[in-house]
Amino acid sequence: MTTLTAEKDAAPGAEEPPDTGARHKLTAVTGLAALSLDAMASVAYGPEAIVLVLAAAGGYGLGFTLPVTLAIAGLLAVLVASYRQVIAAFPDGGGSYAVAKAHLGRRTSLVAAGSLVLDYVLNVAVAVTAGVAALTSAFPGLYGDRLVICLGVLVLITAVNLRGIVDSARAFIVPTAVFVGAILVVIAVGLFRDAPVSTAASDGHTSVLADDATTIGALLLLKAFASGCSALTGVEAIANAVPSFRAPAARRAMRAEVALGGLLGVMLIGLSVLISRFGLQPVEGVTVLAQLTDASLGHNGAFYVVQFATMVLLALSANTSFGGLPVLLKLLARDNYVPHVFGLKADRQVHRHGVVWLAVVSAALLVFSGGDTNTLVPLFAIGVFVGFTIAQTGMVLHWRATRQWGKALLNGLGALLTGVSAVVVTATKFHDGAWLIVIALPALVLAFEAVHRAYGRIGERLGVGKVPEPPHRERSLVLVPVSSLTRLTSEALTAAVSLGDEVRAVTVCHPDPEDLAATEALERDWALWNPAVPLVRLPSERRSLGRPVSVYVQALRAAEPGTRVTVLIPEAEPQRLWQRLLQNQRGAVVAHAVRRDTDAVICRLRFRLGAG
Amino acid sequence: MTTLTAEKDAAPGAEEPPDTGARHKLTAVTGLAALSLDAMASVAYGPEAIVLVLAAAGGYGLGFTLPVTLAIAGLLAVLVASYRQVIAAFPDGGGSYAVAKAHLGRRTSLVAAGSLVLDYVLNVAVAVTAGVAALTSAFPGLYGDRLVICLGVLVLITAVNLRGIVDSARAFIVPTAVFVGAILVVIAVGLFRDAPVSTAASDGHTSVLADDATTIGALLLLKAFASGCSALTGVEAIANAVPSFRAPAARRAMRAEVALGGLLGVMLIGLSVLISRFGLQPVEGVTVLAQLTDASLGHNGAFYVVQFATMVLLALSANTSFGGLPVLLKLLARDNYVPHVFGLKADRQVHRHGVVWLAVVSAALLVFSGGDTNTLVPLFAIGVFVGFTIAQTGMVLHWRATRQWGKALLNGLGALLTGVSAVVVTATKFHDGAWLIVIALPALVLAFEAVHRAYGRIGERLGVGKVPEPPHRERSLVLVPVSSLTRLTSEALTAAVSLGDEVRAVTVCHPDPEDLAATEALERDWALWNPAVPLVRLPSERRSLGRPVSVYVQALRAAEPGTRVTVLIPEAEPQRLWQRLLQNQRGAVVAHAVRRDTDAVICRLRFRLGAG
Repeated sequence: MTTLTAEKDAAPGAEEPPDTGARHKLTAVTGLAALSLDAMASVAYGPEAIVLVLAAAGGYGLGFTLPVTLAIAGLLAVLVASYRQVIAAFPDGGGSYAVAKAHLGRRTSLVAAGSLVLDYVLNVAVAVTAGVAALTSAFPGLYGDRLVICLGVLVLITAVNLRGIVDSARAFIVPTAVFVGAILVVIAVGLFRDAPVSTAASDGHTSVLADDATTIGALLLLKAFASGCSALTGVEAIANAVPSFRAPAARRAMRAEVALGGLLGVMLIGLSVLISRFGLQPVEGVTVLAQLTDASLGHNGAFYVVQFATMVLLALSANTSFGGLPVLLKLLARDNYVPHVFGLKADRQVHRHGVVWLAVVSAALLVFSGGDTNTLVPLFAIGVFVGFTIAQTGMVLHWRATRQWGKALLNGLGALLTGVSAVVVTATKFHDGAWLIVIALPALVLAFEAVHRAYGRIGERLGVGKVPEPPHRERSLVLVPVSSLTRLTSEALTAAVSLGDEVRAVTVCHPDPEDLAATEALERDWALWNPAVPLVRLPSERRSLGRPVSVYVQALRAAEPGTRVTVLIPEAEPQRLWQRLLQNQRGAVVAHAVRRDTDAVICRLRFRLGAG
Repeated sequence: MTTLTAEKDAAPGAEEPPDTGARHKLTAVTGLAALSLDAMASVAYGPEAIVLVLAAAGGYGLGFTLPVTLAIAGLLAVLVASYRQVIAAFPDGGGSYAVAKAHLGRRTSLVAAGSLVLDYVLNVAVAVTAGVAALTSAFPGLYGDRLVICLGVLVLITAVNLRGIVDSARAFIVPTAVFVGAILVVIAVGLFRDAPVSTAASDGHTSVLADDATTIGALLLLKAFASGCSALTGVEAIANAVPSFRAPAARRAMRAEVALGGLLGVMLIGLSVLISRFGLQPVEGVTVLAQLTDASLGHNGAFYVVQFATMVLLALSANTSFGGLPVLLKLLARDNYVPHVFGLKADRQVHRHGVVWLAVVSAALLVFSGGDTNTLVPLFAIGVFVGFTIAQTGMVLHWRATRQWGKALLNGLGALLTGVSAVVVTATKFHDGAWLIVIALPALVLAFEAVHRAYGRIGERLGVGKVPEPPHRERSLVLVPVSSLTRLTSEALTAAVSLGDEVRAVTVCHPDPEDLAATEALERDWALWNPAVPLVRLPSERRSLGRPVSVYVQALRAAEPGTRVTVLIPEAEPQRLWQRLLQNQRGAVVAHAVRRDTDAVICRLRFRLGAG
C-alpha cells in the first residue's frame, strides 16, 4: 500500500511517474524491498492475532497455532500465484479498482475503491497501534498511556505529511531489510534453543490464557484463521506497481511477488513454530513478537533493537497510507466520486484535505479501539479480503474471455478462498467491530454515487459542454457600508468610484439614543467632507447589522432590474497576526447576510495598516 | 451577579434598562428575591468548604465549624453595612469597576474588571459543579460520571444562551424563594431533633475525616475562614443594581441589602449549628447540605425536593454569568480593552462571542478541577475579595473627599478584612490552584492594556478623527480566473465588464501534459466563443493555483501604478447545504493568495445553482 500502489491501483497508466529513466526503476530485489513494507509489517500483528483467538481454548487451543498458520500459508501460496497472473494480465498495474473497472462494472469498482479507502484508514490505525504495542512491550511503564502515545504518533505522521515530504519507495528498503533480518535471526536462533532464554518481558503480566480445554470447535479455528489472515495484507502491492519495475517489468515483478510470498511464508511459519516450541502464552501488554524475541535472543540489547525496528517499520507502514489515500482520493475526485477539494493540491504539493481527512478518521478509529491492535486487525482483514476477492473475480472473467481455463481456475480458487475468508471474518467478528465495516463500506459506495449524481446535476445547471451566453455590460451600482469616517472609508470610496457607475455609502442605524447620535455625527462629518457620494441611512429595528444591507440590496434589485449591485466591504488589516483578533467582524457579518439573502457581488477591500 | 449587575456594574448610567416604567421596578422584597440568587446559591457550597478544611483536624477540628461561621457572619455584617454606604454614594449602581474608575484610576479599574471577568467564569464552574454535586448526592450512581454531567449541563446552558433568551431577574424569584424556604425548613426542623433521623445518603461513602487531633493551628482556622468566605459571593449584586429599584431607589435597595445579609447570616449560622448538633462528618460524594437535609427531614421525598431545588438554583446561578459577562465584555470592548467582536451582537440579539468564550473557559476550568466544587471555591473567593477590596478602598477615598470619617472608617474596615481574606486565601490555597488566579488576573490586566494600545495605534493609522483624503476615480482592471467555459464563466465576465474599464480572464496552467491539453482546449473554445475579453495563460511551475495569479497582479501593479486591480472570483453555489462540500475551493485558494501577496480588491461572485 505504497504511494505507487494507489496511483496505479486506481487509474492504470493515467499518469507516468515523474522519473521514468530506467536507472531509477526497480529490479526484482530492490522492488521486493521497496514494495514489501506493508506485507512484512503485518508479521508483527498476524501471528499474535491467531494466538489470541486460540488462547480462548487454553493451552490445548494454542497447540493449533502451527496448523492454522500452515493453512494461512497455503492461502498465501494461492494468492501469490494468483497475483503472478494479475501481473501478467495487467502490466500497467492491476489493483482491484482497475480490474473491477475493466471486468466487473462501475458499481463493483466503487466497492473496490471503498474497500481500498477503508484499508488505507485501517492500515494507519493498525500500524500505529501495533507500533506502539512494540514500544510498550519494551517499556511497560508506557502501557497505560498507549492511546495518548498512539494519537501522538498519528499527529506526528500527519504533521510530517502536511509539511510535504518527497516520499520514495526506496527510502523504505533499509528499515524493511533490518526488520526482516531481525525476524529471521529471531527465528534461526530460536530453533536452536530448547527453552526460552528469558521471559523477562512477560513476567508479571496477566496471562490471557483460558482454562485448559480438550476440545476445540471448528468455529474457533475459523476465527483464528480469519484473524491470522491479516498477515496477508500487502501482498497486492507489487502487482499494483508493475510499471515501476525495470524492463522486462512483468517478469521482474512476478519474481519479486514470489520472493515476497516465500519470505512472508517463512517468517509466519517460523514464528509459529517458535510459539509452539516455547509453549508461549499470550499476556496482556506484551506482544507475541516481543515475547518470542525475548525467548530467542534474551532480554538484552538485541531485544530492544528488534522492538525498535518493529516500531519504525510499523510507523513507516502507517505513513504509506498518507502517501496512498490522498492520491486515490484525487483520482476519485477526478471521476467526480468524491468532492473536488480532494483533488486540490496546496502550495506545498500536498493533498491537504486528503491528509487531514485520513488523520481525523484514523484518530476516531484509535479512540474507538482504545489503542488496541487486536480490535482493529479483523476490521482491516475484511476490507483487504473484499479487495482480493474483487480482483480475483475480475481475473476469472479476464481469463474466461481469452479461454485460458487453467488460469481462470487458479484465480477462481483465490477468489473463493478470500471471499470465504471475508465472510468468516465478518461473521465471527461482527459484534467486535466488524459491523462498522458492514455499515461503512456500503455507505461509502452510496456516498460515491450520491456525489457523482450531484456533480452531474451541477454540471447540467452550469451548462458544462454547451456554449454559454456571451457576456454583456450592465449598469453597475456599488454600495459601501460605512460606520465611521477614516482613511479606510476614503480608500473604499476610491475603489468603489473606480468600479461603479454609481456609488452609495450606507450606514446601519439602530434605534437607541447612542447609536442615533453616532449616526448623526457621521452624517454631519460626511456633509463637511463632501465626497460626492451620497450617504444612505438604513434603519435597523432588530439591532441587526447585516439584514438591513441585504434588504436594501433586494429593494434595489427589484426597483432597477437592469442594474448590477456590488457590495464593497472595506476592512482594516493589522500587520501583526494577533492584532487580527481585534477586527470587529462587522464586515464578515454584512458579507454573510448579503451572500445569504441576495445575489450581489461581494467585494472585500483589505486595507493594510502596515502599508499606510 | 445577575444581568442587571454587570450592565450597571461596568458603566453606571450609560444605558437605561429598556423598561423604565415604575410598575416594572423592584420593591425591597422583590428586589431581594430577584437579586439575591447568587448569594443564596453560595449557601450550597460555603459551609461545606469550611467543614472540609476543618476535617483535616478530625472531629476536634469540626468543633470549630460554628466559631468560624460566626467570624464569617461578622465579616458579612461589615460587608452589608459597607454596601449600604456604597448604595447611598452610588445610586447609579456602584460595582467595583465603577467605584475604582471614579476614585482609584484606570489601572485599578482594570484590575476590578479583570477580577469581575474571573468571577463570572468561576461562578459558572462553581455553580455547575455544586449543582451536579447536589444531583449526585441524591443519585450516587452518577458520581463517577460527574465531570461528563457537568460538561453536559454547561453545553445545555450555553446552547440556551446562544439561542437568545430574554432573561429577566424576575424569573429568578420563585426558585430563589423555594430554595431559601427549603433551607429554612431544614434548619428549623433540624433544631428540634436530637439526632439525625437518617444517614441514608452518606451510608457507605468514605469519610474524609482525619484522625482525631487535640490541637488546631491558627493556619487551619484561617484556611477554613478563607474557604468559607466563598459563601459571601453575591452580596454586591444589590448595590450594583440600584437603578432597577422603585423610587426611593437607594432606600429600598439598602433595605433589600440588609435583608439579604440577615437571611444569608441566618442560613449560614443555622446550617453550622446543625453541623455541630448532628456531629456531621464530611464524606466523599455527598454534599454537606444533602447530609443535613437527610439528618433533618429524613431520606424521603422532601430530601429529593431540597436536592432538586438546590440543583435548579445553582444552574440558574451559572446562567446569570452568561447574561452578565457578555455585557461586561461589550462595555470593555466599547472602551477598547477587549477585541471589538465582543461588542458585536448577532441577529439573535446575543453576544455570541462572549457566550462562546465563557463556555470554553468554563469547560477548561471544569476539566481542570475534575468537576470538583471544592477545588474551585477558593479560586472563586479570591476574585470576589479582590473586587470587594477595591470597591471598599474606593469608598474610603470617596468619604475622605467629603470628610465623612465615620463612613470612611466602616468601609476601611471592610477593605481591610476583605483584603486580608484575599491574601489568606491566595497564600493558603496557592498550591491548590490559587496560582492560577495569581497568574490570570495580572495577565488579564496586561491583555486589556495591550489591546487598548493596539487599538490606539490602529486608530492613528486609520486617521480616526482626521478628515481623510477625498476619494478619486482610477482606471479599473478586473481579472477573472477561469478554468473552464460554463454559464458561471459567462456570469462572471458580465459582472466584470460591468465593473471594470478593462477585463482580462486568466487561467493557470501546470506543466504536465494533461493540464496543457486542458488549457489548449479552453483556449480553442474561448476563441470560438469570442467574448471580447482576452484569455491570459499564467504558467505555474510548482503546481500552485494561487501564486501565479498573485504574481501577475503584482506585475500589473508595478507596470501600471495608476490602475486599480480587482480580482473577481466566480463560484457556483449549490442550493443544498451538503452539496457545498462539493465545491472545489479553487476560488478560496486564489483569494487567499491574492489577499496575502497583494492589495488588490477581491470580489466573489456566488452563482446560485438553484436560481438558474
